[in-house]
Amino acid sequence: MDLTERTISTRPIFNGRIISLQVDEVTLPNGGTATREIVKHPGAVAVIAVTGGKLLVVEQYRKPLERLQVEIPAGKLDGGEDPAEAAKRELREETGYDCEKVALLHSMATSPGFADEVIHLYVAEGLTSGDASPDEDEFLNVFAYTPEEASQAIADGRICDAKTLIAVYAWQRYMSTGSWGV
Amino acid sequence: MDLTERTISTRPIFNGRIISLQVDEVTLPNGGTATREIVKHPGAVAVIAVTGGKLLVVEQYRKPLERLQVEIPAGKLDGGEDPAEAAKRELREETGYDCEKVALLHSMATSPGFADEVIHLYVAEGLTSGDASPDEDEFLNVFAYTPEEASQAIADGRICDAKTLIAVYAWQRYMSTGSWGV
Repeated sequence: MDLTERTISTRPIFNGRIISLQVDEVTLPNGGTATREIVKHPGAVAVIAVTGGKLLVVEQYRKPLERLQVEIPAGKLDGGEDPAEAAKRELREETGYDCEKVALLHSMATSPGFADEVIHLYVAEGLTSGDASPDEDEFLNVFAYTPEEASQAIADGRICDAKTLIAVYAWQRYMSTGSWGV
Repeated sequence: MDLTERTISTRPIFNGRIISLQVDEVTLPNGGTATREIVKHPGAVAVIAVTGGKLLVVEQYRKPLERLQVEIPAGKLDGGEDPAEAAKRELREETGYDCEKVALLHSMATSPGFADEVIHLYVAEGLTSGDASPDEDEFLNVFAYTPEEASQAIADGRICDAKTLIAVYAWQRYMSTGSWGV
């Protein structure tokens, strides 16, 4: 059976600074119809950056969740920006670290049921430290976690976002197997 | 520095069948103000279900991404539903498998920058097969992947969503260490 849902109509709801929202009416595989509430997002990058055996993470307030979270450095793509360059930029802005190069590990859909956001997750190599320069509405604390500290932060809930969970699993797998990916 | 962003005002934009959208004006840690576009979601569950050494996955069309994806069984919480019961229900509806019990592995924020969605990821134990009964607007194919097939599906992009990446990392870690989590 062809599972494709074909668009009958698109109703724009909201066009914001970061996301937009639309409601699509679609044809289902059995000929019926349904509505799909869809958030459009420009996409984002995130970076696994390890220096001196420690993972660079940033603590910031996440308003949608009304709590502090510890996450790997990340940020949305600026219009037309190359994801690899964006990854280097976000790493530098949020942590002050430059890197020689980044390698793509996964391009992941975060919420495929209601959003088109894709995060490109990179591994940074050749880190050198410098000065951080967060965006003007971005406030954060930078930490470097040992593997044990990262596991502890997951256990006590400071780390709970999907991209950072993947980063910690991938990093710990890398330390035991010598290769990235799964 | 206290990083908390305090709400000045909330403007409701949309109240849909699954998500709602609001724009909050907030006070920043430096006393300035900013807007935050926030999607509210009821939360969801996902299930790592392994039977005969294979991971149960479902293929479905994801309208926001306009493509088929292979994911672990998952679904949103119905109002007030216990997440563990929801996990058992989704596993049964989507794959036909019942399970004796489920154990919580992670509660993960999927898109903390713009959404409050949290997915409760469970490991199912004691699987027995039966008949699937998807929702009336849900069309899917069920597969069972070996570890090699899961890695191949990640490599060729059929698997690309965050919860399923975490599931595969966690499952492969479990097979080498004998314990869930990281």
